[in-house]
Amino acid sequence: MYTQSLQDLIDALGALPGIGPKSAQRIAFHILSAPTEDAQRLADSLLKVKHNTHFCEICGNISESQICDICSDTRRDQTKICVVEEPKDVGVIERTRAYNGLYHVLGGAIDPINGIGPDQLRIRGLLTRLGTRGDDDTVTEVIIATDPNIEGEATATYLSRTLGTLGIDVTRLASGLPVGGDLEYADEVTLGRAFEGRRAL
Amino acid sequence: MYTQSLQDLIDALGALPGIGPKSAQRIAFHILSAPTEDAQRLADSLLKVKHNTHFCEICGNISESQICDICSDTRRDQTKICVVEEPKDVGVIERTRAYNGLYHVLGGAIDPINGIGPDQLRIRGLLTRLGTRGDDDTVTEVIIATDPNIEGEATATYLSRTLGTLGIDVTRLASGLPVGGDLEYADEVTLGRAFEGRRAL
Repeated sequence: MYTQSLQDLIDALGALPGIGPKSAQRIAFHILSAPTEDAQRLADSLLKVKHNTHFCEICGNISESQICDICSDTRRDQTKICVVEEPKDVGVIERTRAYNGLYHVLGGAIDPINGIGPDQLRIRGLLTRLGTRGDDDTVTEVIIATDPNIEGEATATYLSRTLGTLGIDVTRLASGLPVGGDLEYADEVTLGRAFEGRRAL
Repeated sequence: MYTQSLQDLIDALGALPGIGPKSAQRIAFHILSAPTEDAQRLADSLLKVKHNTHFCEICGNISESQICDICSDTRRDQTKICVVEEPKDVGVIERTRAYNGLYHVLGGAIDPINGIGPDQLRIRGLLTRLGTRGDDDTVTEVIIATDPNIEGEATATYLSRTLGTLGIDVTRLASGLPVGGDLEYADEVTLGRAFEGRRAL
């Protein structure tokens, strides 16, 4: 009952994450009634992002050039590397403005069930970075900011063991109660971590 | 912190209805890691839908040809026209398989606050259709299926007055309790309509 091209668009939209059949239909009808330039802009940006975005040769973050803006920014603290799973985690941390060092993007976390071991991640690249840096900008701390779930914790444990022999401080982001949260609604594991990590006031 | 092309894509996605900044970001990263063909397919379907989709010259429904599939299907009941607000309403009614007549898409509903009066809708086209049909397929019933809200009701009232003089049955879809619903959760207006429209068993 829809035209072929409309059904094709609904199908293509419905294949995106978090977009169900109803949303896909709603968006397709929106595009149908919106100016052609809007559809053109979206189509262009879809193709451009695939064409222009590469991974930084140093840290594995997304970049439009061979070396990303963060790696090539000499004003950033060259003694710290924050290890994250995905490029989007870099964005999340940057928005906090709490960190001014460098990053290393693993491209995932250790997940044996899905066949992802250390060799499938950008861990060798991290070791190379730590080994080849000059004396004046030697990395003194690696901050592991993998996700606080099973895969992320396994990755953190693996990294801390691997890097422990290099004489570099290896730290992990604190686990605890979310700010603005309610004690009553915290799960036991998080509350347990909050106790373990309690600080003197 | 994102590359320009990634930010452009996030912005373009975020402008779609029902997609917030978080969803836009999630979809953009999905496209970044998905095969290029997927992005190409979505981009193509966006442009195709704008290029290939027109409005049927008779009923105003979307169509890839001048006359839509429903209007050109002679097996459909030519004596009934169902009046809806938007092309997507045709799809909704077709899926019920409860109706086998023709349609007329108004392109909206009467909404004086937003400057939409009868002249902004495809009402003249409906009158022309009703006036010019031959004797063998004369329309005997116009079913008004505008939305059961203020604008839709105003449109229904306007149409029933305008068409009342033509000697054609003008009907309105029943209002009442949704099937599978719970009496307890029905709003008063719907429950009131259900009483008004009660039927003998």
